[in-house]
Amino acid sequence: MIERLSDIGERELLNRIQKFMPSGQINDDTAEINPKNQKLLLNNDLLVEDIHFNEITASPQDIGWKAVTSNFSDLASSGVDKIIGITVGLVVPPNTKWTWVKGVYEGMKEALDRYGGDLLGGDCSNGAQKILSITAIGTLGKLRLHQSNALPGDYIIASGPHGLSRLGLALLKSDPILEKVKLKSSMKEQAILIHQRPKPPLEALETIRSCKPQDISWRAAATDSSDGLLEAIKNLCKQSKCQAHIDAESIPRGNFWPKGKPWDDWCINGGEDFELVISLPPSWAKAVLKSLPNSYLIGYMKEGKENIVWRNIEKLNINTSSHFKHF
Amino acid sequence: MIERLSDIGERELLNRIQKFMPSGQINDDTAEINPKNQKLLLNNDLLVEDIHFNEITASPQDIGWKAVTSNFSDLASSGVDKIIGITVGLVVPPNTKWTWVKGVYEGMKEALDRYGGDLLGGDCSNGAQKILSITAIGTLGKLRLHQSNALPGDYIIASGPHGLSRLGLALLKSDPILEKVKLKSSMKEQAILIHQRPKPPLEALETIRSCKPQDISWRAAATDSSDGLLEAIKNLCKQSKCQAHIDAESIPRGNFWPKGKPWDDWCINGGEDFELVISLPPSWAKAVLKSLPNSYLIGYMKEGKENIVWRNIEKLNINTSSHFKHF
Repeated sequence: MIERLSDIGERELLNRIQKFMPSGQINDDTAEINPKNQKLLLNNDLLVEDIHFNEITASPQDIGWKAVTSNFSDLASSGVDKIIGITVGLVVPPNTKWTWVKGVYEGMKEALDRYGGDLLGGDCSNGAQKILSITAIGTLGKLRLHQSNALPGDYIIASGPHGLSRLGLALLKSDPILEKVKLKSSMKEQAILIHQRPKPPLEALETIRSCKPQDISWRAAATDSSDGLLEAIKNLCKQSKCQAHIDAESIPRGNFWPKGKPWDDWCINGGEDFELVISLPPSWAKAVLKSLPNSYLIGYMKEGKENIVWRNIEKLNINTSSHFKHF
Repeated sequence: MIERLSDIGERELLNRIQKFMPSGQINDDTAEINPKNQKLLLNNDLLVEDIHFNEITASPQDIGWKAVTSNFSDLASSGVDKIIGITVGLVVPPNTKWTWVKGVYEGMKEALDRYGGDLLGGDCSNGAQKILSITAIGTLGKLRLHQSNALPGDYIIASGPHGLSRLGLALLKSDPILEKVKLKSSMKEQAILIHQRPKPPLEALETIRSCKPQDISWRAAATDSSDGLLEAIKNLCKQSKCQAHIDAESIPRGNFWPKGKPWDDWCINGGEDFELVISLPPSWAKAVLKSLPNSYLIGYMKEGKENIVWRNIEKLNINTSSHFKHF
């Protein structure tokens, strides 16, 4: 018999969820943290079924993993040192299977075990569709990154290639567009893995911190490319009041990434790559490019109107307006 | 023309929401807090339309106010000192009016202005129904309250009368049950106010802290009565492994509160009264009863099975099982 939440009731559901958080809010009114005189970073993200995830392309464990790691990606973009934990607000229709809820918590727990932090607390409620609301908390390290910290003269770097997550989605949905191309099977596997089990760019952040030249200050701008590379660069421009100059030939296509349509578009607008997009002084940028094997120099910040100025745009098969539109 | 979210788009929506949080996550990836070597309390609560609120009985401003103050009530139940702020995950269908969203943020801002704390960040997404997911953070004061801190021998105290919020709901819904009784108009006004604009029990907590006899330690159990007085007492029993002995005549009916059906039930199962239910040593309890004018002694903790033992139960017109059931 399939056990649904309407069969087990709210109290029993909370008891079961509590097993994923030995101490914490579920069996008390609040969770407690003890940050020892450190500044904290906080991030809240919503994941809504059929907008941010669906059950065709992701298992419950994948959804839990991705909910946590996408939040950690935001913490990384601001310069997190150590992750403290998360609170989870879970909305689920009464006909949801218990195994689905369990799977989501298992996936979250896997991500916490891998990257650190505890399940601090949360709430669970009946609702019309599945929704996860995660608030992640971590301590701030020695490099405080802001979207607004870019300056004219900076290099713009991506911590890794872009488009693979979007390719993974297309593969999982058996998108007919893929019938026209032949892809290496290792690339397909990597794309699906990146889509279902993205890694937050915590190691990239560590490398960036470790290779700063001593003679310059701790000033760098960053955001992550969760809403697409183009969106990330636009946000850096807007918040820093800078103009980004990008050569179309420098966009971070991975190895063996095809050219043309839809590949260029997936690279810059695909989203969910969870790489860092950083704007930093040339000497530091050069050190990062050397130390971070998968990183790409994609352009430069200059003075000017807060937008992107393209070179060789005719070589790109893209729509340069953002695809980030959920309403 | 009525402006709906589908007309203004996600980017403009976030721009408008950002005006409620001059610095914070909306225009960066995270918010930052600086707790100065203090322990922190965290709470996450979900409010789902048609389960926790509806537009018939509450304005958008009321919903925002209540979302914040119900979280602050949880922080108070654990012994908060100073409120730091909240993050807000807001899910809204695209046909929602902008004025609704604006009203909710106005209500939240009102509560923050009244009780302290900042709007630290959050997220906003399209979804099938309106949902608010709030995570509230505050520093811990000198009295750490836990649901599990009760001991046999304790007195059980409620920081105020119960049932008024439930009466307020009945009045707002023009419940026919009210046709049989004549209520003072001042009581009706108070009930509606308590239902729409509940106050978190922060002052009660301050009084409890201030009147502890010097010769006993800082040990007390507490929770709030957001899910009903009976549910609160049951949780204290369960988490503390104690038995509560309650005289039916001692339940905290307010002045002029009618007896019988449904009044007894509304008093103990109505919910959303947001009072503290505290279990503490007799000498401290007596001091609280003296210092907190609206407080009630409702019973005693003893050794025994983790439940409630009633005296004079025949004088109550109630269902003693909990009404807390959302699935």
